[in-house]
Amino acid sequence: MTTNKQIYLYQAPTGQLREEDFKSREVPIPVAAKGQILVKNILVLLSSVNRAWIEGPTYMDQILPGSVMAGEGVAVVIESKDPNFDAGDIVFGMVGWQEYAVLNAEEAEKYQYRKPFTHLLSLHGLASGLTAYHGIVSVGAISEGETLVVSAAAGSVGNLVGQIGKIKGATVIGIAGGAEKCNWLVNELGYDAAIDYKNTEVETALQKICPDGIDVYFDNVGGDVLQAALFNMKYGGRIICCGAASQYEKPFREHKSPNGLPVMLPLRSLTMKGFMAFDFPEKDEEAHDDLARWVKSGVLKAVEDVMDGLEFLPKALIGLLDGENRGTRMVRIAADPQ
Amino acid sequence: MTTNKQIYLYQAPTGQLREEDFKSREVPIPVAAKGQILVKNILVLLSSVNRAWIEGPTYMDQILPGSVMAGEGVAVVIESKDPNFDAGDIVFGMVGWQEYAVLNAEEAEKYQYRKPFTHLLSLHGLASGLTAYHGIVSVGAISEGETLVVSAAAGSVGNLVGQIGKIKGATVIGIAGGAEKCNWLVNELGYDAAIDYKNTEVETALQKICPDGIDVYFDNVGGDVLQAALFNMKYGGRIICCGAASQYEKPFREHKSPNGLPVMLPLRSLTMKGFMAFDFPEKDEEAHDDLARWVKSGVLKAVEDVMDGLEFLPKALIGLLDGENRGTRMVRIAADPQ
Repeated sequence: MTTNKQIYLYQAPTGQLREEDFKSREVPIPVAAKGQILVKNILVLLSSVNRAWIEGPTYMDQILPGSVMAGEGVAVVIESKDPNFDAGDIVFGMVGWQEYAVLNAEEAEKYQYRKPFTHLLSLHGLASGLTAYHGIVSVGAISEGETLVVSAAAGSVGNLVGQIGKIKGATVIGIAGGAEKCNWLVNELGYDAAIDYKNTEVETALQKICPDGIDVYFDNVGGDVLQAALFNMKYGGRIICCGAASQYEKPFREHKSPNGLPVMLPLRSLTMKGFMAFDFPEKDEEAHDDLARWVKSGVLKAVEDVMDGLEFLPKALIGLLDGENRGTRMVRIAADPQ
Repeated sequence: MTTNKQIYLYQAPTGQLREEDFKSREVPIPVAAKGQILVKNILVLLSSVNRAWIEGPTYMDQILPGSVMAGEGVAVVIESKDPNFDAGDIVFGMVGWQEYAVLNAEEAEKYQYRKPFTHLLSLHGLASGLTAYHGIVSVGAISEGETLVVSAAAGSVGNLVGQIGKIKGATVIGIAGGAEKCNWLVNELGYDAAIDYKNTEVETALQKICPDGIDVYFDNVGGDVLQAALFNMKYGGRIICCGAASQYEKPFREHKSPNGLPVMLPLRSLTMKGFMAFDFPEKDEEAHDDLARWVKSGVLKAVEDVMDGLEFLPKALIGLLDGENRGTRMVRIAADPQ
């Protein structure tokens, strides 16, 4: 146990990401300096926004060829050079695609022990559960009797948004790829309806399913699906902008936006609200408590898609970008600590 | 005085509006039925959104060839068949491009007498003063020390938005066409800076003038100028969507939207808020009072561009769409009543 296996970006992709864009290498285990912690990674989260990190600067620096691929994950502290952490603590942070990582203490979040550890990335993860909760509750203010449409509805954020919508008393319509996923949304997650965007004209389907219009559209994808929702919004409706999964393979300035936005927003008095999950620190505790309580009482399902082994990370991300996952995809790097 | 001269849409324009798209005719003065009022038109407002009314259904039915052209205006009641109105009352309503109109009483608004009458369409008009006030105060919540950028800054709504921004203590940058208008914004209206979009690369200019980013962008135009503002927004910034003047010559579904919206909104936690001026009836009184008080005290200028004669309406609208006006353009149909 002296080396750190890591997967790094070998070359900048053009368009679709491929396995050849990544390579693995072994480097010495890094050393924590004062104010830092050395952690051993347990689970790494995959998310469509990972693709955007490679394409340009986002809320963090662009990932350039030669750099270890970034990823949020759950880890256990091996050695602490910071008074706020002890060996054995469970932390959440930007651990990267590797076995070990050194994190700045202020960039690591100590998690209350919430078994199973996979829930720390699905239900309680910043990029999954907290994003879904803050998006549809703190920002979206979904309320009883409203009509909610969510895209990438079987994905990590989407499946939770729809389930939370149902808990809050909304009528929930999911948009997902393929009949199987759509059936699953309705039969297993309790969605009121689902639209298979790969085999259906979404705008027409929305008109039929929501003849009175959409109160809240939760957008994970951008592109054509956002376009289809726009012209079906109710007067005064809200569009919650969480992500643009359909566009991440292009530079931001080439991301397609739906036609007609600057005229439809005033005409229908619509609000489009972007947000980041870390915008609401004062509401995080309530979010974690609600999510844990809902799962415990059985009204919310934590849908997880766990693959095993560091070397599967590139394949796991590429598959996720292709829409093959249901719920929160993560890769296990090491066994749960006892 | 038995005929009503009116200007009607002769043919649907394709692209740029032309004078040949309108014709005039004389018809009998219409008769008010129960619940209606017959009015004599005094002033008719011109607005870029008039072009959109011809292109498709908006908040009202599309204007089709053969119909009298629609327009908001100020009129005096000649005959009332409704208990809420009396002959001699001054009303605001959708009077159209004609000498006389019959209005449904519930669609006419009785105005307090606020001389001069032109102020009823500039400062106190729904599509001008109230739109500007509600957009930047009720929706935009502009506050001291913020950086405000407004497009079509010399226009009917824009000039007031910038002036109100200054009154509220913001730094105000206007975007307008031509050096003369830009100088006027700075020297006469007190804007902090102005960008001539016809001769300047707007995005680069905004970077230089607002190196810390834009708090509020008030959008009257859509298209390329909205694109330029988007990538200069501050984290947490607000985009107020009031109009899409650069796009009204195209069907809504062909209106260009800025690239990168679905990714920039979450990344920068931006809000885009569309609104209509009639969304805030509970705040109208305060708006009228503030506007009247500001003009009286000299901190706000009512900028008006009045042309004379019904027959000038097509030319007035075409020129406005071409950006030739400063402030609120209106056409006088008849002299002010005594």
